[in-house]
Parts: sequence; C-alpha cells; structure tokens
Amino acid sequence: METVIIEKQNKNSNELVDKIVSLAKRKGFVFQSSEIYGGLNGCWDYGPLGVELLKNIKEEWWKFMTYRDDIEGIDASILMHPKVWEASGHVENFTDPMVDCKQCKSRFRVDVLGESINEKKQKKILETLEGKISYDKILHEKFQALSEKAEDVFTAMLESPDFNTLVLEEINCPQCGNKNTFTAARQFNLMFKTFVGPVEDSSAVVYLRPETAQGIYVNFLNVQGTSRQKIPFGIAQIGKAFRNEINTKNFLFRTREFEQMEMQFFIKPGDDKKWYDYWKGERLKWYYSLGMIEGKLRYHDHPANKLAHYAKEATDIEYEFPFGWGEIEGIHNRTNFDLTRHEQFSGKSMKYFDEESKEKFIPFIIETSAGASRSFMAFFIDAYYEEEVKGEMRSVLRFNPKLAPVKAAIFPLVNKDGMPEIALNIEKDLRKNLKVFYDDKGAVGRRYRRQDEAGTPFCITVDTQTLSDQTVTIRERDSMGQVRVSNDRILNYLTEKLTNA
Amino acid sequence: METVIIEKQNKNSNELVDKIVSLAKRKGFVFQSSEIYGGLNGCWDYGPLGVELLKNIKEEWWKFMTYRDDIEGIDASILMHPKVWEASGHVENFTDPMVDCKQCKSRFRVDVLGESINEKKQKKILETLEGKISYDKILHEKFQALSEKAEDVFTAMLESPDFNTLVLEEINCPQCGNKNTFTAARQFNLMFKTFVGPVEDSSAVVYLRPETAQGIYVNFLNVQGTSRQKIPFGIAQIGKAFRNEINTKNFLFRTREFEQMEMQFFIKPGDDKKWYDYWKGERLKWYYSLGMIEGKLRYHDHPANKLAHYAKEATDIEYEFPFGWGEIEGIHNRTNFDLTRHEQFSGKSMKYFDEESKEKFIPFIIETSAGASRSFMAFFIDAYYEEEVKGEMRSVLRFNPKLAPVKAAIFPLVNKDGMPEIALNIEKDLRKNLKVFYDDKGAVGRRYRRQDEAGTPFCITVDTQTLSDQTVTIRERDSMGQVRVSNDRILNYLTEKLTNA
Repeated sequence: METVIIEKQNKNSNELVDKIVSLAKRKGFVFQSSEIYGGLNGCWDYGPLGVELLKNIKEEWWKFMTYRDDIEGIDASILMHPKVWEASGHVENFTDPMVDCKQCKSRFRVDVLGESINEKKQKKILETLEGKISYDKILHEKFQALSEKAEDVFTAMLESPDFNTLVLEEINCPQCGNKNTFTAARQFNLMFKTFVGPVEDSSAVVYLRPETAQGIYVNFLNVQGTSRQKIPFGIAQIGKAFRNEINTKNFLFRTREFEQMEMQFFIKPGDDKKWYDYWKGERLKWYYSLGMIEGKLRYHDHPANKLAHYAKEATDIEYEFPFGWGEIEGIHNRTNFDLTRHEQFSGKSMKYFDEESKEKFIPFIIETSAGASRSFMAFFIDAYYEEEVKGEMRSVLRFNPKLAPVKAAIFPLVNKDGMPEIALNIEKDLRKNLKVFYDDKGAVGRRYRRQDEAGTPFCITVDTQTLSDQTVTIRERDSMGQVRVSNDRILNYLTEKLTNA
Repeated sequence: METVIIEKQNKNSNELVDKIVSLAKRKGFVFQSSEIYGGLNGCWDYGPLGVELLKNIKEEWWKFMTYRDDIEGIDASILMHPKVWEASGHVENFTDPMVDCKQCKSRFRVDVLGESINEKKQKKILETLEGKISYDKILHEKFQALSEKAEDVFTAMLESPDFNTLVLEEINCPQCGNKNTFTAARQFNLMFKTFVGPVEDSSAVVYLRPETAQGIYVNFLNVQGTSRQKIPFGIAQIGKAFRNEINTKNFLFRTREFEQMEMQFFIKPGDDKKWYDYWKGERLKWYYSLGMIEGKLRYHDHPANKLAHYAKEATDIEYEFPFGWGEIEGIHNRTNFDLTRHEQFSGKSMKYFDEESKEKFIPFIIETSAGASRSFMAFFIDAYYEEEVKGEMRSVLRFNPKLAPVKAAIFPLVNKDGMPEIALNIEKDLRKNLKVFYDDKGAVGRRYRRQDEAGTPFCITVDTQTLSDQTVTIRERDSMGQVRVSNDRILNYLTEKLTNA
C-alpha cells in the first residue's frame, strides 16, 4: 500500500504542537483542568484515552523496573514530615529569585523581569552600567563581546546576586512603569506549602513533595529490612509531585502538578561510576523498546559547574520535542548526600551493614527520575503521523500496542444479517481481558480513521464471510494489512501480538 | 490435612489490630510515613508487598468498572480551580466546629473538648444548666433520661449551635485550666489549602481536593463528547484525596491522605432509583468476588435526616473491622445537585441533549465512592488467619490470588546438584509476566511460612525428581495441597489459576 508520511517532515513546527494539543482534546487524551472555570494554570486532566495511555506507560515502567530480583516497589505519601525537606536541602535551595515593585506591589520572578526588556533596552542598560561597576573576568569578556551578545550579559548580570541590584535600578516596572522601585531580589521557594491541623502557623507547615525521591530515602532501611535485599538493590516508586512554578509552559512539559517514575539504586561507594553508566544505558533502552523513533532521544550530560547540590554526575535523557530538545528523564549520581543528611537531621542511623565485608557504610545512590507526564507527551508526539494513503489523508497515532489506550475495535460491516450480534459477542469476550471498543456508526473506512486517530492497533470486522466460515478480518493500524482469523482464535492472536510488541 | 483456625474466633479483639499493624510493618506492607522523623500523623507509606496489593486492588476495580461499554475512565488533577469547591458546597459546608481558649490560645475541636470531660463532670454541667435555658422537645426528653444518658445529652448540646456557648462556659480549658475562657465555636474547614504563585493571599488560594468526584463532574461534557457516550453512562477515576482531619484513627481507616476509587453514573432524572439499586448490588458483589468472607459486609442506609447536603438517598458498604463496622464505600444518589451548581457557578451549560426524546436536561448522578486505602485494610484483615497445622502454628494471608502481592515463590530444595540453576531459570521465565520471588534460604518449611505470611498463593519447589523428569512441586497456600507440574507448563498452570481465581 502506498503511504506518504507528511507530518514527520515538519517535525519542528510550532503548528505541530497546536495540532497535538487540539487532537489531545478532541479525542479525549488531555483536557485543561477545571476548564469550565477557565482552567487552572499548570494543571491538566487525562481523559478516557489519556488515562489508558498514561496507565500503560506507568505499567510498562513498573514491570521493567520492579519485575527483577534487585528492585522493590513502594508508594509513599505526598505529605511528609517537614524535616524531610530541611534535610534534603529543598527548604534552603529549591528557590527562584523574586522582586517586588515598591510602588504598585506587583511581584516578578527576576528572570521573567529580564525577559520583559527588549534587546535594545538591555544594551542601553549595560552601557549605563559599564564603568560604574567592577565585575569579574568572565563578565568582562562578555562585556567586550557586547555588540553580539547583550542578552547573555544582561541575563548573567541579572542572575548574579552581586550585580542584580544594580541592573534592577535601571529597569522600569512592567506593571506601573516606575523606575528605581524594586526591592532587592529574594528567594522564593517552589514548594507548595499547607498546614496540618487547625492552626495556620509555622509549626503546622507541611509541603507537597516536590520530588518522590525523598519518600524512598526515608524508607530505605525499612524496605531493605523487610525485603531482605542486599546492596546493590533499588527502590522504585510512581507518584505525584508538585512545584509552584511561576512560568508553566509547553503543554504537559512544565506543569505545577505532575507524576514521576523514580528509582533509587543503593550501592557501595566506589561502585557509583559503574552503576551510573549501567542505568544510563538501561533507561534509554526502555524508551526505544516501546517504539520511540531512532534518533529522537539523546543524553545531555550536565557540566560540572551546573550540577545540583547533591549530584556528582548527572545526565538528562532528552526528547526532541517540536519546541526543541527537552528533558524527560534525569539520571543522577546523588552520592551519599541524601542519606547522610537524613542521618544528621533525624538522628537515626542510615548505615547499611555489609555482611560480606563486615563494613558499615552509608550507600551511594544512583537515581533514575523519569517524568510520567513528560514521557506521555513524548510518546504522544512521537506516535503522531499524518499520511497520504491512496490520495487520502489520515492522521494516525502509531503507539506501540502495549501503550495503545484501546487494544482492538470491533465492527460489524453492516448493522444487519446477524453481524452486530456476532460482533457484540466478540466484544464481550475480549472485554474481560482487554480494553476494546465497539463501533457500528458510519462506513468502515471512517471507523478505521477514528481508530487510527485513537492509536488502536487492531480493528476486527465481522463481514459476510464471517457468517459462513466464522472468521473475521483483523486490520493492523500501521501497515493497514489485513488477515483473516478464526473467531475463536482472536484473543490468542491479539495476546500474542501484544506480548511480542 | 488437619487445620484449626485460631484467630478468626477472636475476630473483634483489639489485639488483632495490633497484630495486623505489626505484621504490616514487619512484612513490608505498610510503614508509618516519615518514620525516622517520628512520623506524620494520618499519613502512611506502602512498602514492597503493600504497593503490589494496593495496585492489584485498584487494577481489579478498574477492570470491573471500566472494561464495560458504558463507563469511561479519567485521571483529573488534585489541584483544581477554587470555584469548584464553592460550587460543590465544600467551602461552606465541609467544616468542623472549633473553639480557642482566650487565655492560653490553644485550639480545640468542639467534640474533642466534649470527650475530654468525664461523665461525672458532664452530668454536673447539665444539672447546672437545667432550668437556666429553654431547650427543644427532643433535648427535653433527653434531659429527662439524664441518669442513664448524660453523655448523649451533653454531646447533643455541645453540637447544637444554640446551646454550645452555654456549655462551653462551664468547661475548663484542658490546657491552662481556666474557666469561662472559650471563644464561640466557629467552623473550621477540613480542606487543605495552599497558594498558587508567589503571593500568599486569598486570591491565590487553591485546595487539595477532598474528594475525586468533582474532577469527574467538571469534565462531564468533555468526556461525553469525546467518547460519544449516551446516557446512561459513567465516568470512573482512581486518585488521591486529602482531608485535614483533626483526629486520625484506626491505622488506615481515618487518614489525612488517602486514595479513592470513584465512579459517577449519569442518568435520566427518574431513573435514579433503578440505578441506585443496581450499583448497590454490583459494588457489594465486587468485594465478595475477590474473596471477602461471607457476612463481613453489610449495607448501612443513611436515615433521611442524616443525608449529606447533595444526597437524596445514600448507603454505606460497611466491613466488620476488629474495632467495629466501618464504611469502606458509599453509594449515593447525588441527584442533579452538583451539575446544577457547576452550571450556576461557571456560567457554562451542563445540560445533556437526549437525541431520542429531543430533551435537554441536567442528568442525575449515582455515585459509587470506594476507599482504596480502606479497601486495602479490609482485604488485609479479612485475609488474615492464624492456624494450627499438625500441631504447629502458622499465620497466613489468604488473599485471592488476583490480589496477592507476589504470585509465586520459587525454591530450590537444596542449594546444590543443579537445583538453583533450574529454579533461577524458572524464576527468570516467570518474571516477565508475573511478580515472583526466589528464596533459597533455610528449610523449605520455613520458606513456606514466610510466603504464607506474605500471602503468596503458589510455591514452586525444584527437587530431586525435577532432575530426572523435569517436573516441579506446586504447593497451594490455603489447602497446602501439592501437585506436580511439568517445567514447561508452570506459566500456563499459574495463569489459569489466576484467571479463574
């Protein structure tokens, strides 16, 4: 069959993002949260097809990560003791700098304020400042390249605690227009906070976890003891996390509420490089094993001066989104930082006793931290194709059958001659084991198109021949090839296809 | 085999709860949240076995509820637009009355304050008040029965906005001991609140959802439109909800963070009685189909004067916990209350157009609201047995195999003669499809006991005979009966047992 792929040629267009968001809504993958009230910024709801795709991604991750003898699963609560976040460093470090306008009381994130200034103005501000301040060598070199890179210098100065006050003096408030009006930048914590119990004071503050990892660390010895695991072993968890992002963007990419799929692998100090490399490889493999297009993923290693406070080595697995490369998973060598801090802050030993070497030590940790919501978005975009088939257009979601929300659709060719009865029986039979869909509306060609857009890998049609020989047509989504299968073999046929997908 | 069941005779003992909590921790089902920091009241973490049991309960619910042609699933966000909770009535009604001590500034929930007073003192307070106040007929009758029921009268008066100020005047502050010191009772909202964005003022307040239901209501027309469902149909969802309970209690029963499994069934007004009865029946069936002991569940219909503000009819499915009967699921006729309110508050039509009758109306809703955490606790307790087997004690969790955390354990009889190699091969093979466990530590009898306590339904032993005829022993947990199965038939054997469980 002649198929010409159209959309994958324009893979970096913004138009594609709009198409994806619109398809996501139209087919019931993703809706805006609280849409009837105008939405809640940074929150999204998964619709009937979306919830199945998300569930399948999480289930495949869970099987890949925990159906092995050296990883245990857990499910820790979202609300944790507030000391956890002091120990983890989040109370101190998980912040963005903010300023207030003294005149109109508006509040701005410093980098957003910077973005509100156009390049010409930025250059002017920098010229005003030149000579007025002493600055370090790197900044000096940047200053010298001023003609090309005003924006970079401006941003660097604005982000530097030493210089941003000076820059701020030169900026007008985007809200009221006044100049020389900003407070000094102060750190704004990105954790959502709430109060446990009836009194809203500082002693009652708890946070919505900004990462699931800490739920694993504080349970380390409980899990190790009850599961009788020996190092090296890992603990895996899927769950919601929350960040009070000031700027949400790119659909599911930067949201305030999101889901993580994290695994923390506990190892001997000294074995960290080996396991870091191992998990780097394994995690990339996972995405490709579920059908991601070759070349759409890459590693982005963090340079030493950009590492998080807990990390010795870190890499992102990035997907090439239409808006550019974006992180969908991070692999980090977190050293013994977290467990050491929890030992200090809780006063409880976090040491592991190694029976072989008779040593006691705090393990190192290699973390694999995947975004379930971001993976969802990557798998969704990756599967999207527009194709010309025999002169007609179709859009199709080529999900790996394991991830597809609906595994099979069942059609009676016409709504008579006993075909609906047979088709409904097949549906009823399959439904016990698989998510399936029955459709008797419109021409079969149109029904195929609807299932293509939903990503359904198999369409089963009951036709005239079924009446005489008890076989059906099964049409495969991507190749559009058809085979005839005996009615009583359908479940076997699908199960085999799904298992080997 | 002679088995004497011991524990099920003492089914209502408090001792049993202690045993269960201790077993839950020892085997890795449930840990206290943030235990190393002394715990966070009302929050629990699921350990390696617990997370599998919980996942299996949710998966069975999802299949039962959404693998049918008239129910769609969704997954809505925990943070929603604050107007949602005005429309739902939660801002106004989801409250407990609280008082402050004017002297020492301590805060108390009114009913807890009442419980702090012993019966003798309660009676004395009531005697002081008699004659001093005019009270209604019911209260008067209660007063007359004072000698037997002082506690009830006291509670009734304390809970009545007309009388509680008078009662409060007579109570000493449990903290500082002062009398006549309490503020008037005021309503304390049980929703957790937080702030979106950097400014912590009233315009930025959002709530952690206290029920998942509203996420379904606001998405009603989006789901209906994209799925092309016709009334009657339902929308199902599993997810976390949060309530700032002042008094948490009974392990997983009353917690601050918990998980719900809710389904909202949208119907024609007038069909509500029929569907209410239907879902009442279906939901009870579900628990029994997963092996709950006959007679441990009952309906508790809410009397008309105790119905929630949105309900026309309501029943609880209660489980007989060791501490008494407790709700694990509610079935409610919520009428068109919620959708009507959302129409009012959002200004968006929530009407459904019925193509058959050409009528437009706001559907009625029958809700089935199950606690995943409470179901977990009920299934856990229900499965727990202590038995005397041939003079020896064993404790065993008789989970339905579908719910069991680990499906099979694989043992080499001895750690030599090639048995470990064969056993490890079997493990590797099964692991692709099932959660399994390999154990080569200690005598086989002890290994059986460990798996009994984990609720593993099948134990596979590689023994001397395996070496000659490639068969293994499969031992069933409850009957302790053993069969020999050919190595290459093990997966089939287990799959069949699990499917028909």
